[in-house]
Amino acid sequence: MKLNIALLPGDGIGPEVTAESVKALKAIATEFEHTFIFESAPVGAVAIDETGSPLPEKTLELCKNTDAVLFGAIGDPKYDNDPEAPVRPEQGLLKLRKSLGLFANIRPVKAYDSLLDASPLKEEKIAGTDISIYRELTGGIYFGEKQLSEDGNYASDLCAYSREEIERIAHLAFKAARQRDNKLTLVDKANVLESSRLWRKVVTEMGSQYPDVELDFLFVDNAAMQLILNPGQFDVILTENMFGDIISDEASVIGGSIGLLASASVGEQFALFEPIHGSFPQGKGKGIANPIASILSAAMMLDHFNLTEEAQRIRDAVDKSLELDITTPDLNKNGNRISTRQVGDFIEDFITNPD
Amino acid sequence: MKLNIALLPGDGIGPEVTAESVKALKAIATEFEHTFIFESAPVGAVAIDETGSPLPEKTLELCKNTDAVLFGAIGDPKYDNDPEAPVRPEQGLLKLRKSLGLFANIRPVKAYDSLLDASPLKEEKIAGTDISIYRELTGGIYFGEKQLSEDGNYASDLCAYSREEIERIAHLAFKAARQRDNKLTLVDKANVLESSRLWRKVVTEMGSQYPDVELDFLFVDNAAMQLILNPGQFDVILTENMFGDIISDEASVIGGSIGLLASASVGEQFALFEPIHGSFPQGKGKGIANPIASILSAAMMLDHFNLTEEAQRIRDAVDKSLELDITTPDLNKNGNRISTRQVGDFIEDFITNPD
Ligand SMILES: [Mg+2]
Ligand SMILES: [Mg+2]
Repeated sequence: MKLNIALLPGDGIGPEVTAESVKALKAIATEFEHTFIFESAPVGAVAIDETGSPLPEKTLELCKNTDAVLFGAIGDPKYDNDPEAPVRPEQGLLKLRKSLGLFANIRPVKAYDSLLDASPLKEEKIAGTDISIYRELTGGIYFGEKQLSEDGNYASDLCAYSREEIERIAHLAFKAARQRDNKLTLVDKANVLESSRLWRKVVTEMGSQYPDVELDFLFVDNAAMQLILNPGQFDVILTENMFGDIISDEASVIGGSIGLLASASVGEQFALFEPIHGSFPQGKGKGIANPIASILSAAMMLDHFNLTEEAQRIRDAVDKSLELDITTPDLNKNGNRISTRQVGDFIEDFITNPD
Repeated sequence: MKLNIALLPGDGIGPEVTAESVKALKAIATEFEHTFIFESAPVGAVAIDETGSPLPEKTLELCKNTDAVLFGAIGDPKYDNDPEAPVRPEQGLLKLRKSLGLFANIRPVKAYDSLLDASPLKEEKIAGTDISIYRELTGGIYFGEKQLSEDGNYASDLCAYSREEIERIAHLAFKAARQRDNKLTLVDKANVLESSRLWRKVVTEMGSQYPDVELDFLFVDNAAMQLILNPGQFDVILTENMFGDIISDEASVIGGSIGLLASASVGEQFALFEPIHGSFPQGKGKGIANPIASILSAAMMLDHFNLTEEAQRIRDAVDKSLELDITTPDLNKNGNRISTRQVGDFIEDFITNPD
């Protein structure tokens, strides 16, 4: 397969971790005889420095003319701590998501056996957890009509959804469940909200197209409890924008390391893959950034193009690195000083020689 | 002090646990020379059976003519499992809250040293946690205008707040912080929502009236993480209705036992105190229900009337019962069969003879 991949390394540790994903992808290309062509473009603070815009026109053009975007991280204290800053690095990502029509955010949460001690939850609670969260990303209350009364004493936000917005992401979630453990949980608040009742109605109707997928429902307040009490009960979680924001962030901490968490944002035509960690400017250039979240984002990209075996090869390499404690300082148990690049080297080697 | 207290024991285990709170309150009255006058009335399924309504007019009248309401629990499978039931027990509580204008729901979350092993979180994460959550209860998206398009393919809910709705609960939360560790955290989503920005503006302005209270802010998605990563950082949390629903339910499981969690719902004129657990119909009449959540609700009632020393006496008795493992089967570690009444007897005794 030939894939054109836009590289948007961004700020802080973004370039360092993205470099390691590229190494992993190049090893996959060699091993499986694919052609991956990478082209880089600036985004975030580095783009503001170069062009004045966090998402230059040329960067957006590149993204629209490639098959997928591999994104690093954005954010720089130079802009973030200046309340007067006219443009902010984060606007680059928001504008990019919107321009590419990325309506579904996908966040896997997995408890690695070798890292159970890093979780704030007791090991027996978290062991075996493997969840994929599908969050609607372009609708709901974050994008609904906002009002502030003239006297400034009354404010409102509208949470609205259409059948179409629900169906397009629900199809993705049902299909994902088929590739996994055939279970889909819709998180809503259908006992109170009209918009949640629409979600429940539409998703229930769609269930008949996916009779092999077990569908259940959970109110969001209960879901917030169940993620802590028994995270192993979940397979695929589907939910609207704000509930997804809360639930996926809550779920992100139960695994014990944010340095492992990948994400995908997909739309009808485009897809973007990025680690959920930020730009960690204090860690920049020190070789201490954990590249695994970025490398697992590259694996999600391969899955997106149905390169399942290739994606699994990357995941096996990551599993092995964790098992052998070939990890950056955020995870390393033996006090070994293993760098970002050394983790990437190990994963690259394992992809080439998995035995 | 003379207090008229309406007792609404309700369904399932409600009457059993409420009986133990009454015993504790009577012991307090004797010890501290107060006069507490109790009058009972039906609510929930028992009220439907008696009168056809889950909140009979006479019950509501009683509540409006007393100083405080001590509530048990409602819900009965006879009605809950019948989708055709014209009235439901839960409607009784919703109507009561509304009729009494109870706009603030207060939920304490505390990690008891003797119960740290019961928490899904690691002991070192949860130790020392002592939070009081103030949730706005009558505004926001749960009560905003709802719309469903005629073709049923579009639905919306409005989240609206006025300055006045925010101020009245914020005053309660600031005052509570003063009685505790002088820290107040507003949970909102002010980076996205107009209504959250109003909350933040109003609460920030009010901060100048409470210069001794340290005020900080947390986005709700981050709060959902921080409650797991470091619950000990919180003192009083203030938030709007839906965020409060999610956050307080999430927080309720970190302590390890829902059988210990009390709550208060207060308004300008009235106040109601209840355990957060439900009616647990399977446990009815078996003497296995944990009465502590109800007893701690009675302590919150005493606090509400500034009977601080009296409330503390109840809490000391509860602490002692947990320390000595004089607990119902849900918590008991030694396999002793201690009943609801025996726990209540111990607490009553300790109130009378604390040494
Ligand atoms: Mg978030
Ligand atoms: Mg709830």
